[in-house]
Amino acid sequence: MKNSFDVLFNPDSVAIIGASEDPSKMGHQCVDSLKNRGFKGKVYPVNPNTDEILGIKTYPTLGSIPEKKIDLAIIVVPAHLVFGVLDECKDKGVKGAVIITAGFKELGHQDGRNLQKEMAEIADRTGIKIIGPNTFGMVNTHIGLNASFSPYLSQLKKGGIAVISQSGGIAHVIVNQGIAENIGFSKVVGLGNRCNVEYADLLEYLVDDNDTDVILLYIEGIDDPRRFISAAKKAALKKPIVACKVGKSPAAYKPAYSHTGSIAGKYELYEAAFKQSNIVSASDCEELLDIAKILSLSSPPKGDRVAVLSFQAGPGIMITDVCATRGMKLPNFSDKTKKILEEVLPPMTIRTNPVDLGFAKGWKTLDTVIRAVLEDGNIDALIFFMLPHPVVPFKELFKGMVELKKEYGKPVVMCINSHQMETQEAIDVFEKNSIPVYTTPERAAKALSGLVRYGQVIG
Amino acid sequence: MKNSFDVLFNPDSVAIIGASEDPSKMGHQCVDSLKNRGFKGKVYPVNPNTDEILGIKTYPTLGSIPEKKIDLAIIVVPAHLVFGVLDECKDKGVKGAVIITAGFKELGHQDGRNLQKEMAEIADRTGIKIIGPNTFGMVNTHIGLNASFSPYLSQLKKGGIAVISQSGGIAHVIVNQGIAENIGFSKVVGLGNRCNVEYADLLEYLVDDNDTDVILLYIEGIDDPRRFISAAKKAALKKPIVACKVGKSPAAYKPAYSHTGSIAGKYELYEAAFKQSNIVSASDCEELLDIAKILSLSSPPKGDRVAVLSFQAGPGIMITDVCATRGMKLPNFSDKTKKILEEVLPPMTIRTNPVDLGFAKGWKTLDTVIRAVLEDGNIDALIFFMLPHPVVPFKELFKGMVELKKEYGKPVVMCINSHQMETQEAIDVFEKNSIPVYTTPERAAKALSGLVRYGQVIG
Repeated sequence: MKNSFDVLFNPDSVAIIGASEDPSKMGHQCVDSLKNRGFKGKVYPVNPNTDEILGIKTYPTLGSIPEKKIDLAIIVVPAHLVFGVLDECKDKGVKGAVIITAGFKELGHQDGRNLQKEMAEIADRTGIKIIGPNTFGMVNTHIGLNASFSPYLSQLKKGGIAVISQSGGIAHVIVNQGIAENIGFSKVVGLGNRCNVEYADLLEYLVDDNDTDVILLYIEGIDDPRRFISAAKKAALKKPIVACKVGKSPAAYKPAYSHTGSIAGKYELYEAAFKQSNIVSASDCEELLDIAKILSLSSPPKGDRVAVLSFQAGPGIMITDVCATRGMKLPNFSDKTKKILEEVLPPMTIRTNPVDLGFAKGWKTLDTVIRAVLEDGNIDALIFFMLPHPVVPFKELFKGMVELKKEYGKPVVMCINSHQMETQEAIDVFEKNSIPVYTTPERAAKALSGLVRYGQVIG
Repeated sequence: MKNSFDVLFNPDSVAIIGASEDPSKMGHQCVDSLKNRGFKGKVYPVNPNTDEILGIKTYPTLGSIPEKKIDLAIIVVPAHLVFGVLDECKDKGVKGAVIITAGFKELGHQDGRNLQKEMAEIADRTGIKIIGPNTFGMVNTHIGLNASFSPYLSQLKKGGIAVISQSGGIAHVIVNQGIAENIGFSKVVGLGNRCNVEYADLLEYLVDDNDTDVILLYIEGIDDPRRFISAAKKAALKKPIVACKVGKSPAAYKPAYSHTGSIAGKYELYEAAFKQSNIVSASDCEELLDIAKILSLSSPPKGDRVAVLSFQAGPGIMITDVCATRGMKLPNFSDKTKKILEEVLPPMTIRTNPVDLGFAKGWKTLDTVIRAVLEDGNIDALIFFMLPHPVVPFKELFKGMVELKKEYGKPVVMCINSHQMETQEAIDVFEKNSIPVYTTPERAAKALSGLVRYGQVIG
């Protein structure tokens, strides 16, 4: 028996109420998003003034759709019509609604708040789960469902990261990074004003969602911190949660309220709440997705002791610096490792942690060094930095590193500072084999710090 | 009359001593870097055991080159041969040397320090300016000179940003970002161990270099802070300087010494020195180049009061947050601006700073809003955020914004969160018209904070 969230995210039928022929209207883009993008369910645009939109037959009302039950309603009508539509939804057995329409709690006056309260009461009474109001919508990549006004979200790659964001704009910023960096998503949800679906509800749902490995949260403000902490604390023991909270400055509080009716509150309180909730925190959007990626690809290290290997000392030092400022340690190698490194690495290299491989040549030497470091009892994880250069044995390194990762099991993060297309293939191979790849020293180190912190959560 | 640095960066003839036929050797890559990449001067590989390398005739010694004088020597011989080569350089009238060879001060023992001291004495006596030792080399894009062991640096775009880095690896990280984001450079220099060419020397040279608009420094440590501060203070009044110092944590001090013989020292002292030197500081490599870009494209604002316009509230709030935490203000608009915004923007938008244009449609409305904001006496600079979406009037916006920027003169930063190729053309148009473009809200706001701080320097 499917629960309401199952139906909401996996509908057999979707109606778009407020569908439009006019390409500049969101009611048009919603139809476009659902069309020919791999969604196998039925799509019913509702509009009393036209016969078809983008080649799909329209119906004048929700009630007039011949199918007896409709699972999901996407609502893009003006605010004063939303309540009438919700009545029709009830009659049509709708289980989930995406209400794109704005003009409720975010207006900041009593009328807006009352309207939203009323909406929540109807939703609770009828058992309809509402995403929104004031949302761009949501996407479930695993069934090709793009229930949003952004047709281009249909190109999202399937993957294990669920994105839950109060801000549609920031959700787009996050998935745009994902598109550029070939990162896959399971579900992307714009919570908007959170009428009766809150972060806590989705944490409870997603923790058992087989398509989701990692839950990513972008937060402007939370109304019921107690429930949030309780839900997150439980969920995070089973699946990693990474979150970013906007509002380090009071300047951001007021616009956050106007945006999605959120009381932003003190940043420090949220930081403490995240810690208490077993949530890994991230300081900006890029770090948020970088950490989500590592959490989705790699299991956490046993501790916080990191080895850094690079062909260039400078980036190795930068990685060391970021690791240290984020609470990780760069310990000395064991005597055994020291001895091996002194044997195989030529002079002019730096044989202590962080290692500058500098003039080391050939895969055989590298294999010996990496093997010694991964075997070292003082080391829990490895960051390996490289730039494209003729002397680096790329192909052997790619193949060999994957084997070594399998053999020793410790987390390995690759930092490949190149935008050359030739490296994309290698990146794919690495990431298929639990080795996340980042382009800059800072991003690699910050991502690993997220993984280390998650390791501390699940102890 | 050319001074030594003019000759070093603009040589008519270059000899590579230690040139090699073996593609795995740096002496080979140095020849490759200079070959067919647009450098119009003469190139002489020196190697006693072969007749030609990559099709270029070689000479057994520097002395045997028929040309009477050689301007620049690239030295890639083993450490114990460097002094002999420097003797030959003196005889051949060499004015500048790039010493790639390592094995001097960075070794951390007295012998290494003594050798480097001796090298400096020879250099000073003979008037040779030495880049290095222990460097990847340097590039002058404006004459197609790639005097380094990285052939791919020859693809760098010409531009106004000079990069001076102790770390070759980090210099590569910075220019790789430049390659990916179409940013141009004037000169890229790996200082290495800084035998007799220090940051201060290059600041003094570059301040009068017509090809350079902005000086970017990546620093591991400085030996003569007094001289550095004095040179920077003077130079920064004429040309912006932006710098990043590695070593926020003591963990990075030791490897920084092993790398280029730098005493890293307390990060806070460097921060204070930067402030005293009129240097704009950046906290990581990405921010370093982002700030350099805005400094090269835009003149600074008169003050720190920023307006934020966006079609999506969330990113506007993120920009607000970063601006506020970096000391910028988001003031209320003047009564006149408020009135205009209330007239032209529909309900559901947010008409206070940060503005959520949300449902605003058409260029006419946008033009009125942007004009009002740029005219507002409370506002010194504008950040405009957008995502690709069918309702945004892209083409009119691109054209119109360029006109408005010209008309009002205040700094405008565009944030276009899209990796779609279609936007590249627009980005080029913006940047040709003094409007820097960034992909994320955080990067846009951090970059503007650099420009604001430079405005405060030149007051």
